[in-house]
Order: sequence, then structure tokens, then C-alpha cells
Amino acid sequence: MSLIVQKFGGSSVADAESIKRVAKRIVDTRKAGNDVVVAVSAMGDTTDDLLDLAAAVAPIQAPRELDMLLSAGERISMALLALAIKSMGYEARSYTGSQAGMITDAVHGAARIVDVTPVRLREALDDGAIVIVAGFQGFNRDTRDITTLGRGGSDTTAVALAAALQADVCEIYTDVDGVFTSDPRVVAKARKLDRITSEEMLELAGSGAKVLHIRAVEYARRHGVTLHVRSSFTPDEGTIVYDPARLPEGETVEESVITGVAVDLSEAKITIVGVPDVPGVAANVFTTVAKSGANVDMIVQNVSAAATGLTDISFTLPKSEGQAALSALQREQEAIRFQSLQYDDQIGKLSVVGAAMRSATGVSAKFFEALFAAGINIEMITTSEIRISVVTHADSVNDAARAVHAAFGLDGDTDAVVHAGTGR
Amino acid sequence: MSLIVQKFGGSSVADAESIKRVAKRIVDTRKAGNDVVVAVSAMGDTTDDLLDLAAAVAPIQAPRELDMLLSAGERISMALLALAIKSMGYEARSYTGSQAGMITDAVHGAARIVDVTPVRLREALDDGAIVIVAGFQGFNRDTRDITTLGRGGSDTTAVALAAALQADVCEIYTDVDGVFTSDPRVVAKARKLDRITSEEMLELAGSGAKVLHIRAVEYARRHGVTLHVRSSFTPDEGTIVYDPARLPEGETVEESVITGVAVDLSEAKITIVGVPDVPGVAANVFTTVAKSGANVDMIVQNVSAAATGLTDISFTLPKSEGQAALSALQREQEAIRFQSLQYDDQIGKLSVVGAAMRSATGVSAKFFEALFAAGINIEMITTSEIRISVVTHADSVNDAARAVHAAFGLDGDTDAVVHAGTGR
Repeated sequence: MSLIVQKFGGSSVADAESIKRVAKRIVDTRKAGNDVVVAVSAMGDTTDDLLDLAAAVAPIQAPRELDMLLSAGERISMALLALAIKSMGYEARSYTGSQAGMITDAVHGAARIVDVTPVRLREALDDGAIVIVAGFQGFNRDTRDITTLGRGGSDTTAVALAAALQADVCEIYTDVDGVFTSDPRVVAKARKLDRITSEEMLELAGSGAKVLHIRAVEYARRHGVTLHVRSSFTPDEGTIVYDPARLPEGETVEESVITGVAVDLSEAKITIVGVPDVPGVAANVFTTVAKSGANVDMIVQNVSAAATGLTDISFTLPKSEGQAALSALQREQEAIRFQSLQYDDQIGKLSVVGAAMRSATGVSAKFFEALFAAGINIEMITTSEIRISVVTHADSVNDAARAVHAAFGLDGDTDAVVHAGTGR
Repeated sequence: MSLIVQKFGGSSVADAESIKRVAKRIVDTRKAGNDVVVAVSAMGDTTDDLLDLAAAVAPIQAPRELDMLLSAGERISMALLALAIKSMGYEARSYTGSQAGMITDAVHGAARIVDVTPVRLREALDDGAIVIVAGFQGFNRDTRDITTLGRGGSDTTAVALAAALQADVCEIYTDVDGVFTSDPRVVAKARKLDRITSEEMLELAGSGAKVLHIRAVEYARRHGVTLHVRSSFTPDEGTIVYDPARLPEGETVEESVITGVAVDLSEAKITIVGVPDVPGVAANVFTTVAKSGANVDMIVQNVSAAATGLTDISFTLPKSEGQAALSALQREQEAIRFQSLQYDDQIGKLSVVGAAMRSATGVSAKFFEALFAAGINIEMITTSEIRISVVTHADSVNDAARAVHAAFGLDGDTDAVVHAGTGR
């Protein structure tokens, strides 16, 4: 008998009909002889509706109370799901984050899981019950207050439960068929991947792929949890996210050089023009930016002009954090001694990811040739062991993605099907 | 400094504007130098909406999960109320039933409070915070599950908190101005009472007055909690529900003979025709009825006819329980040996209540004279120490109420104002 953890997002439980469909899916898994633990998000737009209400009653949002409010959303969906399953004749019990032993730090709105003590869940499983757990929420032991995990929270709940209960697999149900070689809305010929390593998934998630939240992938990788990303609308197999080091002895997976091509249009570029090329400048710049709350992604420093001893530093960051970073830098202009700032939010980031890049040769040559042939102008380049990323103008990044996808032989024979909707 | 417990029902927190108005009211109480603990119901129709969802996903309702579902409603309203208060610059903290130490038995859907351990509430009050508690819900220690208190639950939560925290008063905010001498929709000249004894309130609540739930009044009486029933729409004083035995030395309240006139159209009458007038028959009948789940109110047994040795037994019970009781009696016809059953759901019950009835003379004479003068036909009569109730035809009970209200000098000079809406 296997233990399977299943996560269903908000769009999978948006109304009574969807909840009944999900309940049937869960019962089918149970009927097949598995123990089942489910993490569920709030129904459809519940969280947004609650946030609207909060904004309507209070101009300033108190984090503890906001978490108390938002955690009600999952309490509703989990109870409804348990009711639906029980009326199908199967024992089901729902548990809040705190009842499930989801212990977090005390950072309201973005709490991190520090421990999972699923005593009551084990008891329920031993009683033969299907266990339903509220996603996205936890409990802090010191303050005894309810917390929420922030973006991607329900994915993380599912993975943490799978790790704590040593589940055989953690199935993430979503509105797409799995992980694709690229975003099908950009690259029509993108193909669903049968398998991807957790390392590659991590790079793709960090490069703009939205199917899984990076926190959940990190947690899964650290705790050796195998993920199965699949559609809640079809019974088809989705994509297995696995750790090659944990494959059974002798089993190998044939790898293509490039696993996926990701596009990210959410970033902006700041260029600090004319800073003295002396030690400590970069530290000064990025301390200032970090204090503004911004998360820097790519950094490029030009070779300095010998005549002036001045150089330029460019970096990318989420557009939403651009204004705060600019203001912070402006305030430190005298200390950093730069001449001017440039801000460009019309950029796109293109990344190719593949674990086989470590051993394969000629990957970057093929990559840049494809971009050149497509007439793409490159503004910045960074690389990791298994990833190459470039920044282009926003208008050309989708063309670039299609060109690279074709060049590495990733194109499928038919166009991918695109579903609508997102989960929490 | 006083400690005041305030209870706001669902209609008082139906939308963002109402929540802000309630928040202001709470803050005003705090500004006046009081410690404040608030029990709040779910917003407006939330509970009904959740019940509709439950019915849509599951034909059979599992009590534990239904309580988990319904308890989310108060979690939403309490968090919103705390957010609104905090944004007005006052510290507020919301607590679920279990966080507030509201310990109940394990009867889901109709749990009874067995203990209140408000440790966290005391800490919050010591910190100067306004405390917001989810009404209607509690926690069972053995099962570690969330329970709900059933009808009138939020009133009971407020009273239980007032008792446990030894509050000076428990204010029940509602959509009417207080307790009236009669239902203003029936008796236009009904007057708001400034004071009523808890004993009288209990009789009125048990006789069809809907302003306070009988469970909450009982709890208040048992624990010596003074209630103040008042409008959430006006700042005017409402009605104080007090225990005369606890009045300060020397203080007395002038009592009228009759405090209130109540009408109840929710009952039906069952008559068991032709039962042998021998010992044990009544026990047989009412054991059968009780097993059907029905709550019997009034009982009248006719004098038996000497010739036949047969008698009739009539009793009233809630209409909603009528069918089950009839079926149960039918099944026991042979054992009870009755001739036939009659069912009448076109009855009304009229009650007059007054603590001074104990010492005053001529009350029942004046009562029956008033009914006779108004041409009312009486079907059944019962009395308690401080109450007389009669059953009439449903069509004439409102006329009867107006006649009796006038006869006892309760009519006000002007017509009462009637508000719409109800709370939980």
C-alpha cells in the first residue's frame, strides 16, 4: 500500500461541482488501495474576496488578523471536500494547519515551515480515513497564533506533509497537463515533459515557469520528495519531478541536453551609470538595494573605461520592486558616487535549462547561434551550471524562445492545449 | 474600570460598512474607559450560504465536518472586526472558540459549554487589547475537534465569556431597541421595557419572544450575569435583564403586575382520543413522543367520561416535530390503546408573564375577562408561578394579545418602531 499526498489548488475546487469531481478523484485513489492525504487551497476567488473585504474595513492591514481572516478560506474548502467524500461512503477527516501539526515561524503572511508533527494525521490514517488538510496555513508555537505561508503556500503544505509522512509521491493537481518544455502560450509547439529533475525544475521555476512555486520545489528537493505535476481535468499522467540521485540502482533516465525554455517578463533593469571602478562599490550598491526590500536577479558589470576609471553596473529585479530600489539608490547617490540611473521595464528574460549541460559541449554556441539567426539583440547574459539566461527587449523575447526551442529539437508534432485559470 | 462583554449578531456585521460601524461602537466603549470583550456572529447570510454549499456537495451531512465548515464564518467576521478596530488605532486581537478556551461537550451542531478557560483573553486584556471572540463555536478536549453551539450560540458565547471573566455587564446588540411588552409587529402599542427580571425573560423566551435565546438567558441567570439588550443602530439604552436577588442592598425596582405578553404561532396540537383512563397511560404516550425527538410543551388531560372510562389527552409541540410524533404514536396504537389521533397546526399560544403575579391577586380573573370581552375561544390553559398561557385558534391569538396588553395597562402612547432582520 502506498501513501499518496495530493494537492488541489483553488481553481480545482472553485464550486460545488468541482469539489465533487475532486472528491471522486480522491476516492478513486483510495479505492486503488492507497492511503491518501490531501492539501487543499481556498475555493476559487475566496482569498481575493477576503482581501477585498479586509481592504474595505481597514486602510492598514494588521498581519496577525489578516492571517486569521485568510485561513478561513481553506477551512471552508477542506470541510466541504471532507463532506463530499464522506457522502460517497468513505471516511474522511479535515484538519486545520495547526491541527495537522504544521509548525511555522511567526512571520505572518509569509511564514516558513519549521517543523511538521502530523500526530493526528497518522492516527486518522491508521483508522483508515482519508485525511484533508488546509493548505497555505500553519501555527506558531510561541505566539500560539495562526500563520499563512504566502505565495505557493498550498504546494509547500503538500510537499511538507509528503516529507513528514514519508509519502511515496506528492501529486500536485493543476490546470495544466504537467511541466512543459516551454510556456505553451508562447511556444505553441511546447511538449509536456514526462520527467524532469528537481534541479532543473528549480531553475525553470526561478526563471519564470509558473507551474510550481520555487519554495515547494526547494522543499521537495531538500527532503527527497518525488512530485507528480498533473491535470485535475484529465486522468493522464503528468510530469514526474525527481531526484536522479535517488533513482533505484541501475535505473537511468535518458536526458535531452535542454529540458526547458523559460520566459520571464516580470523583471525590470536598473543601470547605474558612471560609478568609480574601485573595491567596495558593488557592495555599497547592493546593500542599498537589499535594504529597499528588492530581490536582485542578474548582475552585469561593464569593463571600466581606462581613461575615466568609471564603469556601469546593471542588474535586474522584479518590476514591482523597481521604484523602491530607485529611490533608495537616489538617496545614496553621494555615498556611491554614480553619475545617473537608468530604468528599463521593457525587458524579457529567456533561460534554457538542462542538467545534461554539465557534460554536453557546444550548448552555448548553439544557443547564441539560434538567437543570432532570429535577429535577437542580447542585453545581458548570466549562466549557472545547468542554465543560460539572457535579457532581451521585451518585444523580442517570445520570438527568441520559439527560435531556441526549435534549435534544441524540443518542438512537438502538434500544438499544445492551453487551459485557463491559476491556483494558490 | 468596567469590563463589558458585547455581542453583535450577523445582521450587525452584514457588510464592510456595518463592520466599521460596529468597530466604532466598540472603540467608543473602550474610549469611555472600559475593558471590552466582543463575541461576534458570522456576517449576514454567511452561515446559510455555507449550509447551501454543504448541501450541494453532500446529500448526507457529517456533523464534525459541518461544524468545521460553519465555524469558518465567525473566523471571517472576527478577523475583519479586529482589522477595522486596529486601523482606528486601538489594539485588538481575535480568537477562535478554541483559542478563547470555550470548552464544550462533543455534540456537534448543538454542543453545550462545559468550561471556559479564557487564559489568552485575560492576557490580551492585561495588554490593553480589545478582545474579539468567534461566537457560536467551541472545542472538545477529548476529540480535539471544533464544535458549534447550535441556535442562539453567539448569545450563549457572550454570556459564558461574561460569566468566566466576571464582566460587569453583557450587552446583546440586536436589530430591535430592547425587550418589549409584546411583539411590536403584533401589538402596535407595545412598549420597550427598561428592566425585566431574568426569570420573566426566561418565561417570555420560552413563550415565543425571540429577542434572546432561552439558552443564553438560562446561562446568564445561573451565573448571575446582567444582560443589556440594546439596538446596534441607536445609542439609546435598551433593556436590562437582571436578577432581583443580586440588586444592591436597598435598591428595588417598581414592578407592574404583568411585564410582557408573548405570542407563539410555531406550535401544533395533537389530541389522543379515547384512551383508557388508567395509571401508566400518560407515561406510555409521552415516552413514545419523546423517543420521536419531539419536545412537548403544554399538556391537558380531560376528565374521563364515567360511562366509558375513556379520556382524551392533548399536548402541543413545535410544528416541525409534529409529523414524527404522529408516526411514533401511530406505531404504538395497540400498546397505548387509543381510538384516534387529531392534529391541529392552526393554533396560537398567548402567554402573560410577570414576577409580581406571585403576590398580586385577580390576575387570572382580569386575564380571562379580557379574553372573554374580545370573544376569544380558549382551547387549553397552563400556568407557572409567574405565567399564564392559553392556546387559541391561530387566527384569533393576535387579537387576544392586543386585548390582554391593553387590559393590563401595558399600551404605550405611540406605536413602536419595527426594524427588519435577525441575527444568529
